[in-house]
Amino acid sequence: MRPSGRNPDQLREITFTCGYTKHAEGSVLVEFGDTRVLCTASVDRSVPRFLKGKGEGWITAEYGMLPRSTHSRMGREASNGRQGGRTLEIQRLIGRSLRAAVDLKALGEHTLTIDCDVLQADGGTRTAAITGGFVALSLAVKTMMKRKQIKSNPLYGQVASISVGIFNGIPVLDLDYAEDSNAETDMNVVMNDAGAFIEVQGTAEGHAFRKDELDAMLILAGGGINQLMEKQRQVLEAYR
Amino acid sequence: MRPSGRNPDQLREITFTCGYTKHAEGSVLVEFGDTRVLCTASVDRSVPRFLKGKGEGWITAEYGMLPRSTHSRMGREASNGRQGGRTLEIQRLIGRSLRAAVDLKALGEHTLTIDCDVLQADGGTRTAAITGGFVALSLAVKTMMKRKQIKSNPLYGQVASISVGIFNGIPVLDLDYAEDSNAETDMNVVMNDAGAFIEVQGTAEGHAFRKDELDAMLILAGGGINQLMEKQRQVLEAYR
Amino acid sequence: MRPSGRNPDQLREITFTCGYTKHAEGSVLVEFGDTRVLCTASVDRSVPRFLKGKGEGWITAEYGMLPRSTHSRMGREASNGRQGGRTLEIQRLIGRSLRAAVDLKALGEHTLTIDCDVLQADGGTRTAAITGGFVALSLAVKTMMKRKQIKSNPLYGQVASISVGIFNGIPVLDLDYAEDSNAETDMNVVMNDAGAFIEVQGTAEGHAFRKDELDAMLILAGGGINQLMEKQRQVLEAYR
Amino acid sequence: MRPSGRNPDQLREITFTCGYTKHAEGSVLVEFGDTRVLCTASVDRSVPRFLKGKGEGWITAEYGMLPRSTHSRMGREASNGRQGGRTLEIQRLIGRSLRAAVDLKALGEHTLTIDCDVLQADGGTRTAAITGGFVALSLAVKTMMKRKQIKSNPLYGQVASISVGIFNGIPVLDLDYAEDSNAETDMNVVMNDAGAFIEVQGTAEGHAFRKDELDAMLILAGGGINQLMEKQRQVLEAYR
Amino acid sequence: MRPSGRNPDQLREITFTCGYTKHAEGSVLVEFGDTRVLCTASVDRSVPRFLKGKGEGWITAEYGMLPRSTHSRMGREASNGRQGGRTLEIQRLIGRSLRAAVDLKALGEHTLTIDCDVLQADGGTRTAAITGGFVALSLAVKTMMKRKQIKSNPLYGQVASISVGIFNGIPVLDLDYAEDSNAETDMNVVMNDAGAFIEVQGTAEGHAFRKDELDAMLILAGGGINQLMEKQRQVLEAYR
Amino acid sequence: MRPSGRNPDQLREITFTCGYTKHAEGSVLVEFGDTRVLCTASVDRSVPRFLKGKGEGWITAEYGMLPRSTHSRMGREASNGRQGGRTLEIQRLIGRSLRAAVDLKALGEHTLTIDCDVLQADGGTRTAAITGGFVALSLAVKTMMKRKQIKSNPLYGQVASISVGIFNGIPVLDLDYAEDSNAETDMNVVMNDAGAFIEVQGTAEGHAFRKDELDAMLILAGGGINQLMEKQRQVLEAYR
Repeated sequence: MRPSGRNPDQLREITFTCGYTKHAEGSVLVEFGDTRVLCTASVDRSVPRFLKGKGEGWITAEYGMLPRSTHSRMGREASNGRQGGRTLEIQRLIGRSLRAAVDLKALGEHTLTIDCDVLQADGGTRTAAITGGFVALSLAVKTMMKRKQIKSNPLYGQVASISVGIFNGIPVLDLDYAEDSNAETDMNVVMNDAGAFIEVQGTAEGHAFRKDELDAMLILAGGGINQLMEKQRQVLEAYR
Repeated sequence: MRPSGRNPDQLREITFTCGYTKHAEGSVLVEFGDTRVLCTASVDRSVPRFLKGKGEGWITAEYGMLPRSTHSRMGREASNGRQGGRTLEIQRLIGRSLRAAVDLKALGEHTLTIDCDVLQADGGTRTAAITGGFVALSLAVKTMMKRKQIKSNPLYGQVASISVGIFNGIPVLDLDYAEDSNAETDMNVVMNDAGAFIEVQGTAEGHAFRKDELDAMLILAGGGINQLMEKQRQVLEAYR
Repeated sequence: MRPSGRNPDQLREITFTCGYTKHAEGSVLVEFGDTRVLCTASVDRSVPRFLKGKGEGWITAEYGMLPRSTHSRMGREASNGRQGGRTLEIQRLIGRSLRAAVDLKALGEHTLTIDCDVLQADGGTRTAAITGGFVALSLAVKTMMKRKQIKSNPLYGQVASISVGIFNGIPVLDLDYAEDSNAETDMNVVMNDAGAFIEVQGTAEGHAFRKDELDAMLILAGGGINQLMEKQRQVLEAYR
Repeated sequence: MRPSGRNPDQLREITFTCGYTKHAEGSVLVEFGDTRVLCTASVDRSVPRFLKGKGEGWITAEYGMLPRSTHSRMGREASNGRQGGRTLEIQRLIGRSLRAAVDLKALGEHTLTIDCDVLQADGGTRTAAITGGFVALSLAVKTMMKRKQIKSNPLYGQVASISVGIFNGIPVLDLDYAEDSNAETDMNVVMNDAGAFIEVQGTAEGHAFRKDELDAMLILAGGGINQLMEKQRQVLEAYR
Repeated sequence: MRPSGRNPDQLREITFTCGYTKHAEGSVLVEFGDTRVLCTASVDRSVPRFLKGKGEGWITAEYGMLPRSTHSRMGREASNGRQGGRTLEIQRLIGRSLRAAVDLKALGEHTLTIDCDVLQADGGTRTAAITGGFVALSLAVKTMMKRKQIKSNPLYGQVASISVGIFNGIPVLDLDYAEDSNAETDMNVVMNDAGAFIEVQGTAEGHAFRKDELDAMLILAGGGINQLMEKQRQVLEAYR
Repeated sequence: MRPSGRNPDQLREITFTCGYTKHAEGSVLVEFGDTRVLCTASVDRSVPRFLKGKGEGWITAEYGMLPRSTHSRMGREASNGRQGGRTLEIQRLIGRSLRAAVDLKALGEHTLTIDCDVLQADGGTRTAAITGGFVALSLAVKTMMKRKQIKSNPLYGQVASISVGIFNGIPVLDLDYAEDSNAETDMNVVMNDAGAFIEVQGTAEGHAFRKDELDAMLILAGGGINQLMEKQRQVLEAYR
């Protein structure tokens, strides 16, 4: 039995509030249950040094947690004077995942920065950030097309992400904090809308996992990601 | 005429959403028009080194802006590796202002950290942070009393803050970004519920201001702060 | 009775030693009693990025305290790896205050950096820094005119600053350390030679101050600043 | 055809030089072809703060590349003033992987730090670091047992790691730099000697991978890791 | 001919102003011609971690240059966020040199920090800092004895330092900036009052120096240091 | 008697392994007994800002110790966020010493960075780094000539370095760690192949040294450096 009473293959309640803030070219508040992440996409008319003059664009991401988004207060990274290893790892993951959905040549010499800031954490912040980050990115692309900054849509398709794990010996979908902190294995899966994998990151600090467990988790993930993509399409169609 | 169409002595719409996040001992989303600041108060059972063993508590504040809370994206301070001067100045101001309302002896050896994070900026973020910070602090004090962490209420009274300025030659209350970026003089005022001043910070980069202008601004500020305190009392009574 | 035996409206002994160091375009050692601040103005033929190509100049300030300028030794900021919040706040104040006296267009594309280094602290270092910084700035402007780097004098007028406070219930002028560390209210005032305010920063960590106390302090400040400006004019005329 | 002429399921030449440096409790130079990583294990009689007084030990890892271990010189991280995101991500991975092989209670209150420094890079430095790190860790455990610092062997079993990928459409084992920089998919696999997974990290910046490709890669990885573990056992038995 | 018209074996005018600042246990402004360094010695009743509980004291030094102590303005190290290599090298040299004159056991568990801040630079700042640092240290020792913090004088003898070099092919004493910036060889010598060497640091970026040149420079240095020590004794006797 | 049984004027076993790593334009592993330093020289087609457009090149050096190159593990500087004073001092010394052997005009607008990384430390790492650094530099110059990046050989001659000291009252050559940590005086000498001095750095934390001791040490150093230069010539001739 899961602490939340959910079935093993059941997502938490998923909501996207598009246009949550007004300045960004694209913004969305994404909620996976009590996990709330504010994703904004900002357009800049320049590219990193290594792309100068190549006629290509870039997608990058930054991630942060508000100090009291968590059970006990974490030190503020700006005040510590450096981003921690976990933060850097997550923002590199978000950036790689979203770049997999974008034709960087069609983007022209623009950089899109996806900021994912966790207002409240209850497990799965990185998968919410990728899934919401894709929505913010899509909204910013719409804005750029309206403003004629780009001619064609640079998005190849959709990207979404979900966590899976082994909890009390059973593969489960979309772990919340109560599960995450006690799971034997934790895996984050990023997929595209062709059902192929962009990232698979499975970790076993406790119990090493077998191939059949891996397979079961990937099937759960595929099902969850289909539902997330359906939601993404709905909110993107509804919002203009 | 003000860009927003408000009267010179008119506040923007002010709202407080108490309990906006669930982990903090006190949390509130404060809105001054389109300016939105999430304030949380976190209780820690220890004190800074300089207070060790004195039987007194401490109140400190931290301030941050989400990178795209502003018109154009600002660099993330955590990624820059340091908090800027403006940030440090504001968080010192918030801390001083709130300490003025607290009997630190009655607080016992606890530290309360007030985190003020700007989700969306439209002028007046520091005054919203102080005014909302007081509400978060009050909620955390309620939590501490329920948990029997303290015996008596350490709050002396109320603290609130508002900005005033000279815009197109006329003293106005609660400047939004359109006014703030064009004001000749900008002043932030922090007061207590006895009508006395805790902080007065007036700045004239452009036009130096005369004593009669200062007096007119302080009268406006006093009126605005009375309204803010009335709101604070309402939401604190309503929320349990 | 003040610890120094001064009358409430009496300044400490004020001296300016122009040309205290030989390399800077303008330099002065300013003393407010035992508070000694070395102010230098350095001219650089470039401007910050945000002013490039606009034909305007810039005035900026940096502030520091020698580690043993104070009663007990403070850590060296260079060795700590960062300037503290108080330092950043003060140097921002000095820069803003001096810019209020300068026509940045008339300055052309030059940056003047005013370094204010406290050799000995006894209260009022920021007001001494502003008042001495204006003298260093004026000397550097003279040097630039001699060198034909600028055609017309970019200074609008004079700027000076003094502290006022409530000590033992009585408004007093130019607080020394013995008063400053026990004052109920401390206010720093920056004015121009037209008698208007450039900055007013009043702080009450202990006792909040009433409007009549504010008014009394501002009258004291005005009187003190008149005397400081008279001294500034004397030393600037005497020094060539 | 692979650039090196190897078969798809063929490892590079693998060598372990135990006792490569003399000061560390365990040290080994591990070579995967031209990739050379110096791994040392250092024993410290203390534990991180979060483990104080719990009677448990800790395993942590640090990773670095010499500036000219790579084709073109990289900036030195010590001189940049911070470790990059890739470095932090890799050292977190090494630490997690090795902890999966250790009974931390049996280790007592000791910290073992595994330093993995890349002398020469030619692809697969993180998998070499984990595989060599396990050898260094085992040597340090031997030293601790000789010195009677621990009573029983805290190692549960073996840990090794290898990379797999899709190169020119074909799954291949143990990618060198020529392959790695052109692979469509790159996956790092960490396993234990029971054939279970400790970490699976697959990334597709270019071509997203299908489930059948994932399966093919995992079979290759399993075969390679068996060979690495056979080598680990040989060198650990040979070295005393 | 030297730019200053001095003989090859002639020092610049040397002055020591004891008690230049009032807070430090020992303070002196030392001038070697136009080079002016403020040296303060601060007493702290604690020792670094590596000396805890050994009953010994410690002497350490810090060095800094005011930004406009030099011909063109240097960036402020506190603002750069780190001390440069030259600064660290010099403060390590000052600390080592002064420790050579002190019986650390007789000092008891006290740390003396010698701060050497360059107000104006004209060559030879490090030798002035060591020579003045010794005076500040001696004054602080007097203060400690008056306060009964130590029973016996921990000073073994005197320490002073001077620079020598080869300028236009001729060995010269006490180089000023005009010489220093054009010298073929530059050597800093630290000696004690027994005529023995504590530090010899000779550098030839241009012309490598022969043994006979080294010998000639060391004879000059010995003569200069005798004169500096005579001055040190005079000012220390005169000041109480 | 020396701990190693060597005669006072006897070097440890000296070996140079040229081409130790494959990517650098020049690389060598230098061993002075158990001290092992990997030196690489990297060529970059640009120069520091202060040399832009002058048609000259630059030589710079960086130095590091692997965390467990030493008896007990040292913190990793990359992880501390800054290079220590000793590191900066040594890399400045290496850079100055090697520049003394190079005609920077003949080098053209290239920067050569000499990285010296200590794999194992047993005393004398800085002298090994300079002596090996010269070999790496020479190999990189050969590479540049083969690639026609420069026309003429920019090397004036040879540079090598050795330590000398007073151990148990007797002058000795090439101190190992056992001697170094107990020596009364420690001196590092850098010479060219004309027998002249490039750097002489003698330090006496314990016993100050007399002129006759200095002379005896310099004679020992000269003899040792002759042998090092003979070795350098042999390996450079043998390696192509």
